[in-house]
Amino acid sequence: MIQKINEKNYLALDESAQYFECGYSCDNAVFIKLGNEKIFITDARYSLEARQNTKNIQIIEASDLFAQACDFLNKTTIKEIIYDPDNLSISRFERLKSALKKQINLVGSPNFHQKIRIVKTKKQINLIKKSQELNRKSYKDFAKFLSKTGKGMSESDLDYQARIFLSRRGKYDLSFSPILGINANAAKPHALPSNKDKLAYKDLLLFDAGIKYERYCSDRTRTAYFDDNGINFKKKQIFKNRKIQKIYDTVLKAQEKTIKTLRAGMSGKEIDKIARDAIQEAGFGEFFIHSLGHGIGLDIHELPFISKRSETIIEDGMVFSIEPGIYIPDLCGVRIEDLVAVKNGKAEIL
Amino acid sequence: MIQKINEKNYLALDESAQYFECGYSCDNAVFIKLGNEKIFITDARYSLEARQNTKNIQIIEASDLFAQACDFLNKTTIKEIIYDPDNLSISRFERLKSALKKQINLVGSPNFHQKIRIVKTKKQINLIKKSQELNRKSYKDFAKFLSKTGKGMSESDLDYQARIFLSRRGKYDLSFSPILGINANAAKPHALPSNKDKLAYKDLLLFDAGIKYERYCSDRTRTAYFDDNGINFKKKQIFKNRKIQKIYDTVLKAQEKTIKTLRAGMSGKEIDKIARDAIQEAGFGEFFIHSLGHGIGLDIHELPFISKRSETIIEDGMVFSIEPGIYIPDLCGVRIEDLVAVKNGKAEIL
Repeated sequence: MIQKINEKNYLALDESAQYFECGYSCDNAVFIKLGNEKIFITDARYSLEARQNTKNIQIIEASDLFAQACDFLNKTTIKEIIYDPDNLSISRFERLKSALKKQINLVGSPNFHQKIRIVKTKKQINLIKKSQELNRKSYKDFAKFLSKTGKGMSESDLDYQARIFLSRRGKYDLSFSPILGINANAAKPHALPSNKDKLAYKDLLLFDAGIKYERYCSDRTRTAYFDDNGINFKKKQIFKNRKIQKIYDTVLKAQEKTIKTLRAGMSGKEIDKIARDAIQEAGFGEFFIHSLGHGIGLDIHELPFISKRSETIIEDGMVFSIEPGIYIPDLCGVRIEDLVAVKNGKAEIL
Repeated sequence: MIQKINEKNYLALDESAQYFECGYSCDNAVFIKLGNEKIFITDARYSLEARQNTKNIQIIEASDLFAQACDFLNKTTIKEIIYDPDNLSISRFERLKSALKKQINLVGSPNFHQKIRIVKTKKQINLIKKSQELNRKSYKDFAKFLSKTGKGMSESDLDYQARIFLSRRGKYDLSFSPILGINANAAKPHALPSNKDKLAYKDLLLFDAGIKYERYCSDRTRTAYFDDNGINFKKKQIFKNRKIQKIYDTVLKAQEKTIKTLRAGMSGKEIDKIARDAIQEAGFGEFFIHSLGHGIGLDIHELPFISKRSETIIEDGMVFSIEPGIYIPDLCGVRIEDLVAVKNGKAEIL
């Protein structure tokens, strides 16, 4: 089943869809696609920049974007327009419904634009790959820095320094706020950095981060051991604590097994099950508390989802994370994450 | 007319509302308030942290937040529950409608939680004031830095350095991505920083930025002249170019006049008109292309809006920005912004 869809007439409000279609986006715009025609409606703060940064797109400046969109649509002969019900508020829907002429049927299609983007081109995959390469390089530089000066730094300090390395001193945007957790704090999969906990020898450090390269996101997690020999974010890690080592090895095995055995044609939930079963068999099933992975592209989380409930059939060209984790309250959290692209039916690590 | 409202039973999805009610928020939660009872439903990634950071709040862990919320509500005897139609997607609304028992009436109330927060307590005003004080201090330090080393820096470099000063090396979150524009780039009120344009002597620099202090936002804009004497972000500015000076003086006069003459009891649009008329009279009316101001608090933009269309009656305890601007394409943009709190019927600059 080819899941790539191609909606004809639609309305899109999210920046990723707008950037994908126009090569430009801003935080206040309505994008309309009617066949091959593209219309970008924005306010006076952005219209000049929109004109300078797009080609073959009709830019309309308006103070009331929705009124303008309805005016525009009412002048066309279209019979229906698609919207994303996951990304349209009740208020805006009511406005459309009352302002559009009756002939225009509003058709809800959940996540339709992510579906358009779900199978990536080679060029898009290369942008994600490049984004992840830069990200990986920053992990390396950050590890070097930590090995020298990490001892005694609080999670907040680590967070600040991580942002400098990840962004290359402001050159790249981050794809999300980095997650950094020491020991038990790593057991909260999306922990806020604390000022209290300071990095000490024999600590475990979980680090989950990504950047944007030409708007394409990267995402990677490593869990590492810190001692007087320093730290590295390689997959091979030796912990002093035996239980932690067992947890780490379980997560690593589950992650590598999944990447090795997943195939195009499987559903998201079948892939999730590979890792979940491996962790279950090792006795940690109840501590793997989130889904295995998520698609990535212009959005940090997009289709396909790799979860217990995902019926999406995986195909060549899809890109997603594989990130099993085990979180033991008051002890530690371990997560290992890579991005894969499906090529010739198999996963290739980006 | 006292606009402060106090909804009894409601459902809130936005982090500002959740933080206001619970002292904690995360990016995946449903908050329910039933009279004095508070219920925070979140997934396993956040539930531990939620428990540690709240008091007298029932924390429920669930993988499907909406299903859990409906289950919970169906066990109560409530007759209606309020939601914000500006902040609830069609998909989620449909789910609530189909899962909630028929006795529970869903009542849309646009922006109801911002209305609850529209009149600030003295304590909240002091937090915004403190946030703005820290922000002002960062402007000063940044100006010192620019005076020494700003020459030749690109907007992207300036952006990176500004973030370091604003965040005090990571200590504070920013309330939004700073806006920095040199000369003609400042004519795009929300310009993206460019790599091409470098700061040179005799340039105009527009700088709009803010931080968060205990989650409360600050926001400030200055437009300044840069030359071999350096730069400062004070209101008194002398430009070499006479037209720019006239524009600057017009914006400054409009801003100061508005702050001096606005009164509790006026509507948002009456206040907007004070500045708009002043700019119109000076012949620049068509170049003031946005509204005069916005409320600020836990959200960087919240009620009350100070715009041509705003019917909101301003009262003691409201906090908002006054930020007129004139933007001449290919020449320059000038904006001057302060935050005011209304006290004893008059505006007090924070």
